[in-house]
Amino acid sequence: MAAGLQVFGQPASTDVARVLTCLFEKNLEFELVRIDTFKREHKLPEFIKLRDPTGQVTFKHGDKTLVDSRAICRYLCTQFPEDGNRGIYGTGSLERASIEQWLQAEAHSFDAPSSELVFHLAFAPLLSMTPDEAHIAENERKLQQMLGVYDEILAKNQYLAGDDFTLADLSHLPSSHYIAATPRGRKLFTSKRHVARWYDAISSRPSWQQVVKMQSEHPGTFE
Amino acid sequence: MAAGLQVFGQPASTDVARVLTCLFEKNLEFELVRIDTFKREHKLPEFIKLRDPTGQVTFKHGDKTLVDSRAICRYLCTQFPEDGNRGIYGTGSLERASIEQWLQAEAHSFDAPSSELVFHLAFAPLLSMTPDEAHIAENERKLQQMLGVYDEILAKNQYLAGDDFTLADLSHLPSSHYIAATPRGRKLFTSKRHVARWYDAISSRPSWQQVVKMQSEHPGTFE
Repeated sequence: MAAGLQVFGQPASTDVARVLTCLFEKNLEFELVRIDTFKREHKLPEFIKLRDPTGQVTFKHGDKTLVDSRAICRYLCTQFPEDGNRGIYGTGSLERASIEQWLQAEAHSFDAPSSELVFHLAFAPLLSMTPDEAHIAENERKLQQMLGVYDEILAKNQYLAGDDFTLADLSHLPSSHYIAATPRGRKLFTSKRHVARWYDAISSRPSWQQVVKMQSEHPGTFE
Repeated sequence: MAAGLQVFGQPASTDVARVLTCLFEKNLEFELVRIDTFKREHKLPEFIKLRDPTGQVTFKHGDKTLVDSRAICRYLCTQFPEDGNRGIYGTGSLERASIEQWLQAEAHSFDAPSSELVFHLAFAPLLSMTPDEAHIAENERKLQQMLGVYDEILAKNQYLAGDDFTLADLSHLPSSHYIAATPRGRKLFTSKRHVARWYDAISSRPSWQQVVKMQSEHPGTFE
């Protein structure tokens, strides 16, 4: 039984979104505890109603507290193997090893440049910041390079760790979504044939669509 | 300074909505702490995404905790007399006495039949309950009678306690809104000329419109 699962944070945060997507994939019952701050002069400029991609996530299950979104996803999959999508963290040790390899790649190589692009392509313009072109180009180059490797793998597999959607794919969704929502960022995902097909497939999953809906219904605030 | 104001609950609750409207009128900074429960099989029927009008409100200001929505509104107005709408709870003792008289009328005479109508006209159909016609008619009769008195007063004053919008008017908004959203309930407010004018004026205030927006963005759930 999944009683007592609680997530603290805003769905607009990429870390919170990662955890929510996993909870929906696992079809687990949970509570989302969110704090909205209403400032004086509540007619806020539009950008403030947008998203804060830097927000952290806190997860509680009974006495247990976790704060790393990928660790929370792993925890959910190992604690509740029989719920919802059973294959999402692999069913054998070989499968799990392959998923783990991609989860590590996402956390250690994909996350840094993609977080930079989320900020500089999607959020900086809303804060009227002058774009740092060299910085954007550098991170685009890094991400492009990674996605080149992804494209080769995805020419052979439907998904990163094989022919099933797993945590490895899921973990890429929150940042990719913000990047692909900008014209310049979108090209990173559409210019490579297999990456384009893969991103289409993962971003149209009902679990993720539910999170996107929550993001637009529950916009975060810049503090 | 209004630091440390926290509201716990769902904007869809009439009690929470009353408090939020007052906070926006007073232009106070606050936090809304909301817990959403996501059940297994998250594709919920439409009505579940609608509103729970029975939810209570909890309010904290530092060490102080209050749970009655009208008491919270009074507290906000007396604690923060200089913020936002200064006249909303009256500026003199005579004015305040008149507002109090109408606040009492709302709490002790308007609230019971209007809450019944909120449930039976707006929510029961969504729960596929057979309408209890006699019960609805009885509460319509009670509300109509009250609104007859209101109409006489509103023929002389712009608002209930005089020519300014006050807590007396504000307090009527949350239930009236749900009733007036149904074709049958709407007639209660449109069939009397001065009541119709008054309801138009109070329901179009930016503070209330902000709450309506939050209700549609943050729908509550039936537990």
